[in-house]
Amino acid sequence: MKQQTSEKLLIEIEKALAEKNLDFLKNALAQAHPQDIAECINHASAEDAVILLNQLSGPRYFEVFEYINLETQVQLIGQLNRKQTIKILEELSSDDRVDLLDRLPPKTVETLLPLMAQAEREETKKLLQYGEDTAGSIMTTEYATLPIHDTASEALQHLQKIAPQSETIYYIYIVDQSRVLKGIISLKDLVLAYPYQRIEDIMNRDFISAFVDEDQEVVARRLAKYDLMAIPVIDHDHKLVGIVTVDDAMDVIKEEQTEDVHRLGALEPIETPYLKTKFWDLAKNRILWLLILFFGVSFTGTALKHFSQTIQSAVALVFFVPMIVSSGGNSGSQSVTLITRALAVGDVKAKDLFPVVLREISMGAVLGLCLGVMGFLYAFVLGTNFSVSLAVGLALFGVVLCGSSIGGILPIILKKLNLDPAIMSSPLVASIVDVIGVLIYFNVARVLLS
Amino acid sequence: MKQQTSEKLLIEIEKALAEKNLDFLKNALAQAHPQDIAECINHASAEDAVILLNQLSGPRYFEVFEYINLETQVQLIGQLNRKQTIKILEELSSDDRVDLLDRLPPKTVETLLPLMAQAEREETKKLLQYGEDTAGSIMTTEYATLPIHDTASEALQHLQKIAPQSETIYYIYIVDQSRVLKGIISLKDLVLAYPYQRIEDIMNRDFISAFVDEDQEVVARRLAKYDLMAIPVIDHDHKLVGIVTVDDAMDVIKEEQTEDVHRLGALEPIETPYLKTKFWDLAKNRILWLLILFFGVSFTGTALKHFSQTIQSAVALVFFVPMIVSSGGNSGSQSVTLITRALAVGDVKAKDLFPVVLREISMGAVLGLCLGVMGFLYAFVLGTNFSVSLAVGLALFGVVLCGSSIGGILPIILKKLNLDPAIMSSPLVASIVDVIGVLIYFNVARVLLS
Repeated sequence: MKQQTSEKLLIEIEKALAEKNLDFLKNALAQAHPQDIAECINHASAEDAVILLNQLSGPRYFEVFEYINLETQVQLIGQLNRKQTIKILEELSSDDRVDLLDRLPPKTVETLLPLMAQAEREETKKLLQYGEDTAGSIMTTEYATLPIHDTASEALQHLQKIAPQSETIYYIYIVDQSRVLKGIISLKDLVLAYPYQRIEDIMNRDFISAFVDEDQEVVARRLAKYDLMAIPVIDHDHKLVGIVTVDDAMDVIKEEQTEDVHRLGALEPIETPYLKTKFWDLAKNRILWLLILFFGVSFTGTALKHFSQTIQSAVALVFFVPMIVSSGGNSGSQSVTLITRALAVGDVKAKDLFPVVLREISMGAVLGLCLGVMGFLYAFVLGTNFSVSLAVGLALFGVVLCGSSIGGILPIILKKLNLDPAIMSSPLVASIVDVIGVLIYFNVARVLLS
Repeated sequence: MKQQTSEKLLIEIEKALAEKNLDFLKNALAQAHPQDIAECINHASAEDAVILLNQLSGPRYFEVFEYINLETQVQLIGQLNRKQTIKILEELSSDDRVDLLDRLPPKTVETLLPLMAQAEREETKKLLQYGEDTAGSIMTTEYATLPIHDTASEALQHLQKIAPQSETIYYIYIVDQSRVLKGIISLKDLVLAYPYQRIEDIMNRDFISAFVDEDQEVVARRLAKYDLMAIPVIDHDHKLVGIVTVDDAMDVIKEEQTEDVHRLGALEPIETPYLKTKFWDLAKNRILWLLILFFGVSFTGTALKHFSQTIQSAVALVFFVPMIVSSGGNSGSQSVTLITRALAVGDVKAKDLFPVVLREISMGAVLGLCLGVMGFLYAFVLGTNFSVSLAVGLALFGVVLCGSSIGGILPIILKKLNLDPAIMSSPLVASIVDVIGVLIYFNVARVLLS
């Protein structure tokens, strides 16, 4: 049971690398799973990555390469010679090959493509045409098909021949002469069938599929919803062009979730792993949002200027500004998080606008009442005068109500407009609520104090 | 291709329900996928849910029930009679049965258990013992095993008999007389083997497994990492006790991601779908965090009191308080989001403490410099005097540096201490940074203005 020892092996591999003990390294690598070796290579320096990869040979070399993350693959390709690169490209499964080529400079791709074997070249050219984030960009063309008139036992014999070239044989696809998809049969049903039963009688004609230009996230979630291990991808003539397998769908869902989380945290989504992202790319990404939010909140400065009189007459008002501002932001954060996540996993749909709005407004009122009372008591107990304490309480009520309402309503309205609800980041909602909070607070205070 | 019509069907079903047109309803349901019907039931009222379920019969009834979400299942069980409930419990696969029983009142479980068939009862009692969030709590006991001395062709015949009782037959498990797991063979390898080859010669002895008391998220991520469709679960004597399938692992990963997202948004994780969560449960959850954060930031009030002198001598200082406070919070949000997510997906590990800390501090310095210069210029151009403008710039530099450093370092330190890094929510970091920001700002101002 390797997973219990894989951590130990990784430490041994690192030690062997540090000591440049290649014999020991080869031995340790021979015992490790390809996925563990790939993880090692992902974390290693550029030099060590090449050393590690070169200790492998035969099918293991390509198997490990397939599990290495894209950024490291690109890095490695830069250090390998053209012959090695071509060999790798030919051995990779079609979806991984296209992913890699998509990241290489177009000039490099132009020089590499003509050197590849014809079958792989034609296929790659076709796959490279599909837009990013479509089903076409994550599908593989290595699927198993069977003739419709086979019997179950003929089909099994047939399958033994084509299995090595297929990424999965757990579903087998039945197409007619023009490659139109007619049905699907699972390996389980094939094995359980009587030997003389015909494929056309046992295949499932009522299958779930995806169009080649559909969004990859939609397709991945469909595969998850129906508990499929692969989903066939068809063009608009209903011809089978590829399949998306469950492992690739899981990767897509993981990526899209990272995007959502990043957006909620006020970042443009970052596709590369944190430690592999270039410092200045990350800095540019972050500074952009910080400045947008900075100028968003800068309105509070202009607003506060109008209240100089009020402030001077009761400096105590200032003490509570951060509390009011941040409470509004926090309730907004909670709502935007709840609704964005519920939309992402499908618990809430665009048509649920009304119950969601009703709920968030009532919730905002309840939470605002709680915090308002608490804020009033807190200010008053601290020895603040009654008017200022009351202004604090009322402002807290208003700001929490606004935070919850805006944070809850904006994402679902964006969804209704067919926009990504996650672009409404928590900090963005917080900034909007900040400005509103300052206005409520000082307006209430001005009235109460005059 | 049903997914293209599933939305249409759902609308038809809703219409038929509203019109109480049962014939039309039955017809529409007959064409729909079990998962789509389950989704319909999840979204329907308690009454309609029962009507929908009662239109189904035979295996479809149980198939649909399995896809209904847990909260709705519990609701439904409350409205069905005991005989129906027992039948459902017996038909559900063992993992789903245990999930459901776990949510029912203990008294109900006590009365139901003795009524179940003996085999299911014994199995259920065993499964109910495993702690929540362990591999044992999500595994199923309906797996396929084969005797080690079978030949491939004997094995296939054997498999045809046991397949109907197995949740998956894509992996078959080879155990000895005392049920110790000796090897695994995939259906693919079995089909591709020569008929006379012995199982023991073709099975994989070097398999990935999980212990029954391991954390479910760890096990789900292991399954994803090694691209498995199921992972065997063993006890500490290495006896096979169950398997976790890929669809259940995907559900676990989805749940755990929801937890992380909720924590980042300052909520205690909520397991029930948004619209199914009771209003007051949600309110309690939210008010708890709002109060914690409120009292966290309340220190700024006490701090500001000390600076009454400074504020009175330059009211302009107040105008920039929200900007400074929120910029610190935003840079903290970005860091905590980046690092928490990178830790969750494994891009960053606890041992990467040093490079992460170095990176976030340098990043904080760069971002702080940018925002500091921008803030100084903004204040100065607006006609603020030089000292106050300088205080604004320096405070922004300090607060962004603190935000980035604290937001980046806290999650990875929590991880090093084996705590959940996601408990360090963005708003919590923002609150800490708020207090620090106010202190920096007014201390700098006091020095510059005196």
